[in-house]
Amino acid sequence: MNQEGILVVVSGFSGAGKGTLIKALMETHDNYALSISATTRQPRAGETDGKEYFFVSQEHFKSMMESDALIEYAQYVNNFYGTPKDYVEKQRAAGKDVILEIEIQGALKIKKKFPETLLLFVMPPSAQELKRRLVRRGTESPEVIAARLKRACEEASGIEAYDYIVINDDLEACVAELHSLIQAQHNRTANCLELINRVRNELSLL
Amino acid sequence: MNQEGILVVVSGFSGAGKGTLIKALMETHDNYALSISATTRQPRAGETDGKEYFFVSQEHFKSMMESDALIEYAQYVNNFYGTPKDYVEKQRAAGKDVILEIEIQGALKIKKKFPETLLLFVMPPSAQELKRRLVRRGTESPEVIAARLKRACEEASGIEAYDYIVINDDLEACVAELHSLIQAQHNRTANCLELINRVRNELSLL
Repeated sequence: MNQEGILVVVSGFSGAGKGTLIKALMETHDNYALSISATTRQPRAGETDGKEYFFVSQEHFKSMMESDALIEYAQYVNNFYGTPKDYVEKQRAAGKDVILEIEIQGALKIKKKFPETLLLFVMPPSAQELKRRLVRRGTESPEVIAARLKRACEEASGIEAYDYIVINDDLEACVAELHSLIQAQHNRTANCLELINRVRNELSLL
Repeated sequence: MNQEGILVVVSGFSGAGKGTLIKALMETHDNYALSISATTRQPRAGETDGKEYFFVSQEHFKSMMESDALIEYAQYVNNFYGTPKDYVEKQRAAGKDVILEIEIQGALKIKKKFPETLLLFVMPPSAQELKRRLVRRGTESPEVIAARLKRACEEASGIEAYDYIVINDDLEACVAELHSLIQAQHNRTANCLELINRVRNELSLL
């Protein structure tokens, strides 16, 4: 199949378990690389530069935008978020499938730019379960939970733009499913053109 | 996900091993049903009515065409081949994924009629390997082998219309891959609309 890694966007409601899922996927398979976004927002307690995000100044972010160093960027409230191009390209060239954990705005921009990108949307088995998980975290106030559920409502309107839905019910089964969906992408006809053309040439010479 | 079975077309060069592959898939998983085509051609030695094909008269075939009892049909030389609708619909309604082993003409017609159909193309790892397999069968004359390779050349021009390529190298690995590609289709967003809308409604009521 293709030697180059594919680009995979994983989105999903806050509380759907994207983070845990992606972490487990990276731990159980070595063919993935996780893209880290750059952002102008301040790090929260416990966040480390280069781990959750690359925390950069507004000025630095603007220079990245201007020098075409981001494959997509978006603004939420007063903060910018973007995907550095350099890392993604290097990892793909090395054959790694690159995971971007970004929101729908960015997902749609990437799909437009790279139509073979796989867009995956992680859902909880039910809205009640989503609420339970947000409450169980115990880190957020009722107001924040309400805001997240409202946000989930809004995000839900964009789901149709995604290629596949992943129901995060059982973690292990879900990781296996995610891996299988991503690997299937290597068999997409558009990702096998080199092989197809080789066999075609060979056939014509037989 | 969706309760209804999906429609899967498996095509591929003669000698690529489609038949063996599909047989192994059916034997190792019980969620598949194999559609049997109707044809007006004469049965060959060893072929049984209702197994390889439903062998019907030209008249009977025409009445099926006229009563909309075929989901697609095509003519090769003087013979008609078609897919009976009744079996496919019953099996899908029962939740079985229905496999159609048909050629590109029929595949394109089905995709047009049912856009969510999965089109899979089975390829040998190389043209030389295809030739080796055709020769190894020992059932065909050099002329027939040459004709099949020529036909493979022609069919190769249509591969881009397929969704996925399956390389038939190792049978067991290939069956697992085929199964995984087909099951992924159940996660297609278009096949999960019921679930998406349920969660959306639930979210709006929280």
